[in-house]
Amino acid sequence: MLTLYYAPGTCALANLIALEESGLAFEVKKISLRDGEQRSPDYLKINRKGRVPALVTDYGVLTETPAILTYIAQSAPAAKLAPLDDAFEFARLQSFNSYISTVHVNHAHRPRGSRWADEPAAIEAMKAKVPENMADCFTLIEQTMFEGPWVMGEAYSLADPYLFVMTDWLPSDGVDPARFEKASDHHARMLQRPAVQRALAYDRA
Amino acid sequence: MLTLYYAPGTCALANLIALEESGLAFEVKKISLRDGEQRSPDYLKINRKGRVPALVTDYGVLTETPAILTYIAQSAPAAKLAPLDDAFEFARLQSFNSYISTVHVNHAHRPRGSRWADEPAAIEAMKAKVPENMADCFTLIEQTMFEGPWVMGEAYSLADPYLFVMTDWLPSDGVDPARFEKASDHHARMLQRPAVQRALAYDRA
Repeated sequence: MLTLYYAPGTCALANLIALEESGLAFEVKKISLRDGEQRSPDYLKINRKGRVPALVTDYGVLTETPAILTYIAQSAPAAKLAPLDDAFEFARLQSFNSYISTVHVNHAHRPRGSRWADEPAAIEAMKAKVPENMADCFTLIEQTMFEGPWVMGEAYSLADPYLFVMTDWLPSDGVDPARFEKASDHHARMLQRPAVQRALAYDRA
Repeated sequence: MLTLYYAPGTCALANLIALEESGLAFEVKKISLRDGEQRSPDYLKINRKGRVPALVTDYGVLTETPAILTYIAQSAPAAKLAPLDDAFEFARLQSFNSYISTVHVNHAHRPRGSRWADEPAAIEAMKAKVPENMADCFTLIEQTMFEGPWVMGEAYSLADPYLFVMTDWLPSDGVDPARFEKASDHHARMLQRPAVQRALAYDRA
């Protein structure tokens, strides 16, 4: 059995979509960031980082979205969520997801700038640059990474839910998603997938 | 053939150590960050991100250290640089390397704060917090991730060169490495490996 520790509005959504796509048996446990549950003694026993997501498996706990996505893909080979038999294509997927973790960090400078500076003015300065940085990232993604119709090309993969979450955050980051035609179209097609609909229903319940 | 685009003093060192450990045939090309070669038209054709490392393979170019490390491990299975036959252990390695990418970003707020804010005072405020953030990361690594004697446990893996590079940066980040006994001991043992010695000789030539 797999248990995903989840918080709405976080990148844990990419992990939940992946589980929904995989056909694996799993359960989800919600952590309230507003109530600080991610720093409760019980949760810190599961993930000492005090963050979501965490995936509890029969073998131990996994953290970090790129690693969890890989584990889900390898645990459900029939779902074909990653190019498991081609080392280069597999690395290309890892490269994309590593880059998305960088995009995630750029996003985090808006809501969580206090991680990187203490002064309120510095935190405001970081917030102010987020729209420019996120737009630069999406420009690079569209020009150099997005193959189409899915991120990696013809085959849907676990790059897709991770990109989806970043695109979903663009309005809150002060970027009009309509500026990015490929990412917007991708987002719209993701919304049509039953796995995405189930994950979003849980996220917003 | 593999070609690694490299710049001294960057995380490309972890990739070079991995290649030296792998037994694979490769060449290295140095990029001078001081001269801005990473933004030259020729280099941008290889890596549009304008950063190192980039690994040119027979199938295309790979970027992002966690992805390159995985590709090297999968391309040289005899070198046993990753637990390729155990999905959970493999994911645990990915998780560690994903986390190190976060540590890398924390480090980058010292030399490259202008990525995240424009105001000089904000950039100084970011620099000021780097020692605290790097020390927090190493505390977490030692308490919850480092198995010993190597990062993943008994087996040396491609988590080791990536941690080595971060430990190597601690003094420049204002953190005394002696505060972190496991990481310091690991760093000293890494320095004894011929692959590390060859990589450092190239880095510092």
